[in-house]
Amino acid sequence: MEEIHKFVFETRIRFIDTDASGRIHYSCMFRYFESAEIEFFRAMGFRTFREDVSFPRVHVECDYRLALLYDDLIQIEVRLTKVGGSSVRLDFRTLKAGQLAATGCVVIVCMDRNTQKAIAIPEQLREKLLAAMMG
Amino acid sequence: MEEIHKFVFETRIRFIDTDASGRIHYSCMFRYFESAEIEFFRAMGFRTFREDVSFPRVHVECDYRLALLYDDLIQIEVRLTKVGGSSVRLDFRTLKAGQLAATGCVVIVCMDRNTQKAIAIPEQLREKLLAAMMG
Amino acid sequence: MEEIHKFVFETRIRFIDTDASGRIHYSCMFRYFESAEIEFFRAMGFRTFREDVSFPRVHVECDYRLALLYDDLIQIEVRLTKVGGSSVRLDFRTLKAGQLAATGCVVIVCMDRNTQKAIAIPEQLREKLLAAMMG
Amino acid sequence: MEEIHKFVFETRIRFIDTDASGRIHYSCMFRYFESAEIEFFRAMGFRTFREDVSFPRVHVECDYRLALLYDDLIQIEVRLTKVGGSSVRLDFRTLKAGQLAATGCVVIVCMDRNTQKAIAIPEQLREKLLAAMMG
Repeated sequence: MEEIHKFVFETRIRFIDTDASGRIHYSCMFRYFESAEIEFFRAMGFRTFREDVSFPRVHVECDYRLALLYDDLIQIEVRLTKVGGSSVRLDFRTLKAGQLAATGCVVIVCMDRNTQKAIAIPEQLREKLLAAMMG
Repeated sequence: MEEIHKFVFETRIRFIDTDASGRIHYSCMFRYFESAEIEFFRAMGFRTFREDVSFPRVHVECDYRLALLYDDLIQIEVRLTKVGGSSVRLDFRTLKAGQLAATGCVVIVCMDRNTQKAIAIPEQLREKLLAAMMG
Repeated sequence: MEEIHKFVFETRIRFIDTDASGRIHYSCMFRYFESAEIEFFRAMGFRTFREDVSFPRVHVECDYRLALLYDDLIQIEVRLTKVGGSSVRLDFRTLKAGQLAATGCVVIVCMDRNTQKAIAIPEQLREKLLAAMMG
Repeated sequence: MEEIHKFVFETRIRFIDTDASGRIHYSCMFRYFESAEIEFFRAMGFRTFREDVSFPRVHVECDYRLALLYDDLIQIEVRLTKVGGSSVRLDFRTLKAGQLAATGCVVIVCMDRNTQKAIAIPEQLREKLLAAMMG
């Protein structure tokens, strides 16, 4: 399960995600984090956005260390760092040519789509997540 | 009703909508067209996005004439140019300091959200739209 | 200067900023924070994005408390909470109908556009910022 | 050169690109067209966004035929359909499970970044483009 414990998503910085500073608009890092998260969960056999349950973010943050430019090839490492009763935390590290360009995290809660309230993560999923976290 | 016949929406080009060319990313003009459309319909007492009916676009286009830069103040003129049985067409003109910067249009169909099929525009709305088009 | 000390920016949640959960995509809160920041600095007589100096973000974060839906009217309060030698911190509070919907912050550094290195905030600007922070 | 004449770019619809209708926001199709265009030109050994010359869009359009949902796998076919003195036209077809979901095009001009005026496409590039168009 090593490949899930430290999942790597690779992408290029798209032109639309740059701004007039010539670099990536900072908010677009969350777009790439989201793609990395989706592919991380897919690799675990889990689809994030479902009919009955949704997974809204309750906290996000990012630190930026290197300028990212149009067409830069980046790797985003995804790590599951906390599995609580109703929430999980994912940590991200963005690398460019082997150098750390950004770090960030998102905290996601499991929410019942009808009641719009946080609920316990379904047991089967929670076990998978714990296994993934332990590597 | 003259003020509805030629509705004007004013906004500034936001930094996030620029790209590394230093100008607005062309696709963001559609973001501003959407805001103009929403406020145009609001001025008519009509809310575009509802539970039962949705209004997807079936055709959009835009011609770009002037560079639009960060923080430019623009005016978008909205005109209702066609009201069909199940679709409407809106035309947009974007002005910057009195000069034409872009023109565009969107064709929207009225769709039943459940069946995902095009339906006739509700009669009451259609009458309002025809009145607005006539000025 | 009270009106600068606690600056309020008002906007509506645009349709393009929602996602298939029916709510605002979390990353779009940073778009609204940016608009609030730009108008905050404009009220101070200061234009954020200039030729010689740029102001990249080095840290951003946001906590989400309430669901924000299409067309919701929100107020974003901006406060300048730290003025360092080469960086400033802005704190944001997003309100919906008087209730706290989100809180966040951005840390911005003053960077020479040519060298791409952090530099001291120009003295005249720094004094303005300190005055604004003190209220 | 057959593989360039009809270039295919494959991607998934990302969650951030959906809206509260549950489907892709129509403007995001241009994001995917842009990625397809970039990879099309990369396959030709050509990098679209350069220091001296830029390639702004003067016309774009899109017709939408099928609903595209979160995580849908799509293929975008890119064809170079016109190579003029200073402009090129690219046509796009978006397929989902073998069905036509959207068609669109962009007209790009070759512009001197300093003068901001349209210029003739550099001869070497123009020859490559003509060869690619002919297949």
